[in-house]
Amino acid sequence: MAPAPDSSVELLQGTLDVLVLKTLTWGPRHGYGVVRALHQLTDDVLRIEEGSLYPALHRLERRGLVESEWGLSENNRRAKYYRLTADGRRYLRAETSSWSTFADAVSKVLTATVAPA
Amino acid sequence: MAPAPDSSVELLQGTLDVLVLKTLTWGPRHGYGVVRALHQLTDDVLRIEEGSLYPALHRLERRGLVESEWGLSENNRRAKYYRLTADGRRYLRAETSSWSTFADAVSKVLTATVAPA
Repeated sequence: MAPAPDSSVELLQGTLDVLVLKTLTWGPRHGYGVVRALHQLTDDVLRIEEGSLYPALHRLERRGLVESEWGLSENNRRAKYYRLTADGRRYLRAETSSWSTFADAVSKVLTATVAPA
Repeated sequence: MAPAPDSSVELLQGTLDVLVLKTLTWGPRHGYGVVRALHQLTDDVLRIEEGSLYPALHRLERRGLVESEWGLSENNRRAKYYRLTADGRRYLRAETSSWSTFADAVSKVLTATVAPA
């Protein structure tokens, strides 16, 4: 994703995966819990659609970065809970560092005030 | 683009477009000048391939965000020079603000230390 020109921010697939993993670092969550966590952590700036979230969770599960099991939600409904695996935790650490390098580089360009050669 | 897990950073198409526009804010450049500017501004963190750069320049030209004309390079070779248009400058301003909102939100999530609800 590139940031959209309007206020709604379109998420890149790879970035979404990392954000989803991060929400699971404090313990298992069901899908709606992941969405709620992302909204809360970003003051609603990152709006995640179910149409992107579930493919992301399934992608992460296929790659062994999360595991899921059925459980009961706070409303006593059956819900699938997703849990970070050890591989998922390692991947999150690497990608977080990579994101930070990338975002710093982009910011350096966009805020540059002196012409490069 | 999502940041790649290895050190080479894969650029998102939309982000690349904005970075290219930014390098033109100080005056026209030819393609190689754009690449050199991005390498220099980011200490070589953002490596741009010709295979991505020229499609980006053509995309921007089709959208009226840059204009090109032939000129002579510093080595006295014919080269196409790209110039930011007024629309390009407006687009760059909007996208820079959008990028900053997005990057702040992602950073907030990735650096969060307190569990959201």
